[in-house]
Amino acid sequence: MDTNKVTHNPQPISRFLQACHRQPTDATPVWLMRQAGRYMSEYRELRKTYDILEIIKTPELACQVTMQPINAFELDAAIIFADILPPLEGMGLSLEFVKGEGPLIHNPVRTAADVAALRVPDPQEALWFTLEAIKQTRAELDSRGIPLIGFSGAPYTLASYAIEGHGSRNYEHAKGMMMGQPELWRQLMEKLADLVGHYLLAQAQAGAQALQIFDSWVGSLSPSDYRELVMPYTRHAIEIAKAGGVPIIHFGTDTNGILELIRDAGGDVIGVDWRIDLTAAWQRLGPNVAIQGNLDPIALMAPWAQLKQRAQIVLDQAAGHPGHIFNLGHGILPATPVDNVRRLVDFVHEYTQQA
Amino acid sequence: MDTNKVTHNPQPISRFLQACHRQPTDATPVWLMRQAGRYMSEYRELRKTYDILEIIKTPELACQVTMQPINAFELDAAIIFADILPPLEGMGLSLEFVKGEGPLIHNPVRTAADVAALRVPDPQEALWFTLEAIKQTRAELDSRGIPLIGFSGAPYTLASYAIEGHGSRNYEHAKGMMMGQPELWRQLMEKLADLVGHYLLAQAQAGAQALQIFDSWVGSLSPSDYRELVMPYTRHAIEIAKAGGVPIIHFGTDTNGILELIRDAGGDVIGVDWRIDLTAAWQRLGPNVAIQGNLDPIALMAPWAQLKQRAQIVLDQAAGHPGHIFNLGHGILPATPVDNVRRLVDFVHEYTQQA
Repeated sequence: MDTNKVTHNPQPISRFLQACHRQPTDATPVWLMRQAGRYMSEYRELRKTYDILEIIKTPELACQVTMQPINAFELDAAIIFADILPPLEGMGLSLEFVKGEGPLIHNPVRTAADVAALRVPDPQEALWFTLEAIKQTRAELDSRGIPLIGFSGAPYTLASYAIEGHGSRNYEHAKGMMMGQPELWRQLMEKLADLVGHYLLAQAQAGAQALQIFDSWVGSLSPSDYRELVMPYTRHAIEIAKAGGVPIIHFGTDTNGILELIRDAGGDVIGVDWRIDLTAAWQRLGPNVAIQGNLDPIALMAPWAQLKQRAQIVLDQAAGHPGHIFNLGHGILPATPVDNVRRLVDFVHEYTQQA
Repeated sequence: MDTNKVTHNPQPISRFLQACHRQPTDATPVWLMRQAGRYMSEYRELRKTYDILEIIKTPELACQVTMQPINAFELDAAIIFADILPPLEGMGLSLEFVKGEGPLIHNPVRTAADVAALRVPDPQEALWFTLEAIKQTRAELDSRGIPLIGFSGAPYTLASYAIEGHGSRNYEHAKGMMMGQPELWRQLMEKLADLVGHYLLAQAQAGAQALQIFDSWVGSLSPSDYRELVMPYTRHAIEIAKAGGVPIIHFGTDTNGILELIRDAGGDVIGVDWRIDLTAAWQRLGPNVAIQGNLDPIALMAPWAQLKQRAQIVLDQAAGHPGHIFNLGHGILPATPVDNVRRLVDFVHEYTQQA
């Protein structure tokens, strides 16, 4: 064992999994979206040799990166290092991560023929590398009592990428198809829901102890568009994934207008961002789901005094509710100081420790 | 008078202004954010000769562009052609519109010295061109009974641009200053509130018959950050502008989490985007404000049957509430078909016409 590694307190039962089930915990569990990433020098070092897709598709490397933040901080869960886009490759889309520009799909989905041509691949074949990475990482994590989260993009977020072909401000093409050709849109969403559901299920079967479905772009929708044209497909994916028998975290950003619908689409834990106070989130979501969130990632750029104050507000809003998992409202930003991450993680535990 | 010009129905009292005051109207008034812009060939033609800042700073050209959509469609209000950023030039920032990239500030505000160096200019001097354009445009509009809207960015949206220096996905620097150096942030917001308030007031005095304050980026904030660090300054700006004696439209996108706070900051009309149903907006905002919105601009890309259906839903949600101004939830996109704009404007009137 490396001498630099954090020695996690032994947790016979993971407080992260307890919180997923809304059971009392000895302290509030914490993990951070994109906790493995560019803000860590270990990760930047590895990226000098390998690009993102190489890391994702080489189980040993994906495992190594997944473990980097676990070795550095007292985190309560690991999340497998992967990306939401590789499932689209398995459907027949050509994916590239362009340096400095982010992901690019060379043959975006725009026509009925494009939708018809999409395969729904078997995750065991198309995404074997992430399933294998999960197996290898579980072996590393089990001795430390830290559970592993698997994940997938939700159908809407994947559809948006598949149609736009790259990141977008207005989702002109994606929402254009949704609004202008709703039947074609539904065909696409059906295929994506099937793939997402079975991919999540396969991750649970490979050893993931919880699953997170990321609907990162869902906040661009009106409530009625979400209800009619998105929610049925997210629900279908979650229904399939449920057979894995592990808790499901349903995360979206900017979901103030559709929070109850997000809950009704499924999930044991609802992930919210900073745009909604946790007090209000609990009131609206009720006692039958756990809540994950919701510090603004930009707070991690602030001096410790300000960061601590903001973390404390989040924890105070969650106090008295079983089933709070502390997290950010979105992924850690690359410029985040590592020391702030360490202090934040430790503070969450210290502040919420039960005597 | 050009033969191609739309002949507006004579309106002895503007239905737009009636709706601002929540009075009954003969039909629902409609105007569209960014109704003068790149989707119109007349505008693209003019842009071959002049760049954006040249048009804005030449009152005759700004007037001409303001009139383009009024000449083309049965719109119920004109909005002066301008931009939210020129006020920052008057404060001492160096602004450029970079072709294909959008606005760029060469000396963004990052330090205490930067904030201290910012002037609060007299709008009569720093923004004379827009005030003069308002005077000239009023002369053109009065014969047609169409009122003119003046506007300004809100302090938060201006602060975000001033600090970031360009459009931003995460507002890392802007929110970084807000969270990390709240006292410095407050100094900046005080200056901006003063400028915005007096700029809006000067526009009313120059002849604007309504004023819109755009807080386009406010949806990135948590409710408590909005309440503590933004709302007091928007309120101050609106308080100053009120002396102009014309209705004030307070617009933000993605305001689901802070809608009541937006209302409480001030404004006779609250502008909302498509993320909130108008039914819910009326319930939350109560009877003492009018509401403007809220079609998703991407609906204008859809075939007419789908567009019409979506416009109808908006109008049905507003039915029975005096004080609805039909608009988009954000600006028209450049790829919008002109014919859809024409049909939409006419449909709003026909569908809501009182027998």
